Amino acid sequence: MAPAGGASDSDLRALRPSGRRALKVGRGAEAPPFLVMDVIAAANARAAALPAGAPGILRMEVGQPGTGAPKGAAEAAIRALRAGAPMGYTEAFGLPTLRARIARHYAERYGVAVAPGRIAVTVGASGAFPLAFLAGFDAGDAIAMAAPFYPPYANILTALGMRPQILPCDATTRFQPSIAMLEALDPRPAGLIIASPCNPAGTMLAPAEIAAIAAWCDANGVRLISDEIYHGLTWGTVAESTAAAVSSSAIIVNSFSKYWSMTGWRIGWLVLPEDLVRPVERLAQNMFISAPHVAQVAAEAAMDCVEELEANKAVYARSRARLLDGLPKAGIDRIAAADGAFYLWCDIGALSNDSVDFSARLLAEAGIAATTGLDFDPGRGARFLRLSYCGDEAAMAEAPARIARFLGR
Amino acid sequence: MAPAGGASDSDLRALRPSGRRALKVGRGAEAPPFLVMDVIAAANARAAALPAGAPGILRMEVGQPGTGAPKGAAEAAIRALRAGAPMGYTEAFGLPTLRARIARHYAERYGVAVAPGRIAVTVGASGAFPLAFLAGFDAGDAIAMAAPFYPPYANILTALGMRPQILPCDATTRFQPSIAMLEALDPRPAGLIIASPCNPAGTMLAPAEIAAIAAWCDANGVRLISDEIYHGLTWGTVAESTAAAVSSSAIIVNSFSKYWSMTGWRIGWLVLPEDLVRPVERLAQNMFISAPHVAQVAAEAAMDCVEELEANKAVYARSRARLLDGLPKAGIDRIAAADGAFYLWCDIGALSNDSVDFSARLLAEAGIAATTGLDFDPGRGARFLRLSYCGDEAAMAEAPARIARFLGR
Repeated sequence: MAPAGGASDSDLRALRPSGRRALKVGRGAEAPPFLVMDVIAAANARAAALPAGAPGILRMEVGQPGTGAPKGAAEAAIRALRAGAPMGYTEAFGLPTLRARIARHYAERYGVAVAPGRIAVTVGASGAFPLAFLAGFDAGDAIAMAAPFYPPYANILTALGMRPQILPCDATTRFQPSIAMLEALDPRPAGLIIASPCNPAGTMLAPAEIAAIAAWCDANGVRLISDEIYHGLTWGTVAESTAAAVSSSAIIVNSFSKYWSMTGWRIGWLVLPEDLVRPVERLAQNMFISAPHVAQVAAEAAMDCVEELEANKAVYARSRARLLDGLPKAGIDRIAAADGAFYLWCDIGALSNDSVDFSARLLAEAGIAATTGLDFDPGRGARFLRLSYCGDEAAMAEAPARIARFLGR
Repeated sequence: MAPAGGASDSDLRALRPSGRRALKVGRGAEAPPFLVMDVIAAANARAAALPAGAPGILRMEVGQPGTGAPKGAAEAAIRALRAGAPMGYTEAFGLPTLRARIARHYAERYGVAVAPGRIAVTVGASGAFPLAFLAGFDAGDAIAMAAPFYPPYANILTALGMRPQILPCDATTRFQPSIAMLEALDPRPAGLIIASPCNPAGTMLAPAEIAAIAAWCDANGVRLISDEIYHGLTWGTVAESTAAAVSSSAIIVNSFSKYWSMTGWRIGWLVLPEDLVRPVERLAQNMFISAPHVAQVAAEAAMDCVEELEANKAVYARSRARLLDGLPKAGIDRIAAADGAFYLWCDIGALSNDSVDFSARLLAEAGIAATTGLDFDPGRGARFLRLSYCGDEAAMAEAPARIARFLGR
């Protein structure tokens, strides 16, 4: 051992041979990059280089609302900070008042009784997934999900040594999994992730479909994870329902990032089945300690900012209606059922079989940033494009005319 | 498949047989509970039940400063919120201004040039560890660490399928690992975690020891992870040095929680070796998206709040001096070298061989909440107690007299 006073230079030289064993990089770090990052960088560069007065870039690649947190949420944070609240760690599962408020949300919105003790406040939905996966599954386990899918599902599972099992879906099932697809899985997977509304397709499962899937999962020993992060942003084509209403074994994931417009505050939550409450609490104590305190204060207040949030939602609804009217006329006419969220999943196979190239040209020639489908469906995404409509309303309104010109209509 | 319009009741009944396969709980969720949680609950209960005017409970079990964020940090957050900043996601590695400010910190404090591109802002140090572990290691890998240790090191590693390899340390090496201990490891582990100052022992490695360990790691293909979360809270007995000064392959973990007194804001950072920058960025994009935005704004401002933070530190220094003077007279006289952090690691083997029972009696009879050593060293912790002195100064000053009475001195 080096003496407490310090190793000598010769000690150090002896320990530094010229031939070193190379240090490795863990396999868990092999997540593929998001191709949309290149689009974002290119869009930022183009926007910065635009001459004054030139038409701006329409940002349809982003998955976050252009609005910030509701005013009441920001004000609650300001009030708490002004009062000198120390903002230390909260309990691992979050402020008791926030957990109770979320429980009340289930009663009021869905008519479902959820005990506050089953609610874990997390660092966004992102922080919820590793907790759910580690509590529900082991390394090597297969977890099924529809394609197209939110890429972190697969990338986090892979980082944890688990195996995403992809169910290729198409418009015949609204890009959602069906009981028939699940029945075909032999052996049964350890888990199933559903999302309704989903990202990127924007489609939903009907309440009875969710109930049937939950029952199938229970009957087959499959842990159901229901990602409900886009709840609240639904457009009336399919009724919104939570898996918490039909399953006591499912893990529900939700977040303040989308309907509540609080992406960068990093607050989400889990509704846990009773058997996973203590295991997830121990994991959360170790892996997170707690979610950010001031953001929990803001999130609790956000739940009462209905008027402002419904006004945000009305903007998305108008943008959605304009795009669903204008895009088909402009030449993009194969769009997944736009049931919820703020995405349009567009089959551009009649226009291009290379959506990376198509989105690059769309940006260069029409000034529209969009996401290639390959980010969400490595197998079939080359013929799909995701258009997000949560951005500036005037910009969204401009998109159909620009696309029409781009496609020569 | 259930029709989009909804499955019939008979469909649902068919899918719910009476005999269900039991759902399992993942092995990753088997982290042991923190025994201190019981002490915290008991201390809260006792504090709540105290009659008016009774002497309060001295909280020496907590690992977080009693002070909140520095005023300048809270004010920066308030200013940004008042200005209506949307607080969306930041880049996965954090606000460029914060990364640059942290890089400047390395130049100013340690005289070490660290490129801002190597700095990843994380969701506390807690959020940094899974990124570091997944980027540096694979499931099944052994990662060495001294005992006693910060329990989440082992619990996160275990959750990720990795294997903590414990090096039992004692006062002869300041409860820190030595080159001799590392040389005895055959086969070599994939990684080594060091912490200087460490939690719970409060001891440090001398600069030359850190250099020697870093060189040994490089020579032996062992990835070094240096937890520097207690930097800034050192008491002059050992010089403070960062592994970033002596290793280009080490992963450095730090946080705004301790010196900067911002626990509940959940902002930490990594200094990454060049080969891990892109792998960790991809992992962070998937697992976190970004650290909380408003907390990043506050953290950046905190780095300029030197006067307030040094005043906090002076309080810890006075409490430390009083305890190091008073505890031996009171009967607790085997204390690890209190080089840094705000913990005293006390060998109470002469008083009890059951520190769980001892801490329960200490709370019940002396009104002092303390942490059993078993939380930090399952093998030998029954004869150790961790006393934290970051709490209220007057309370800390009262501790020696209460302990003297408790021990009948």
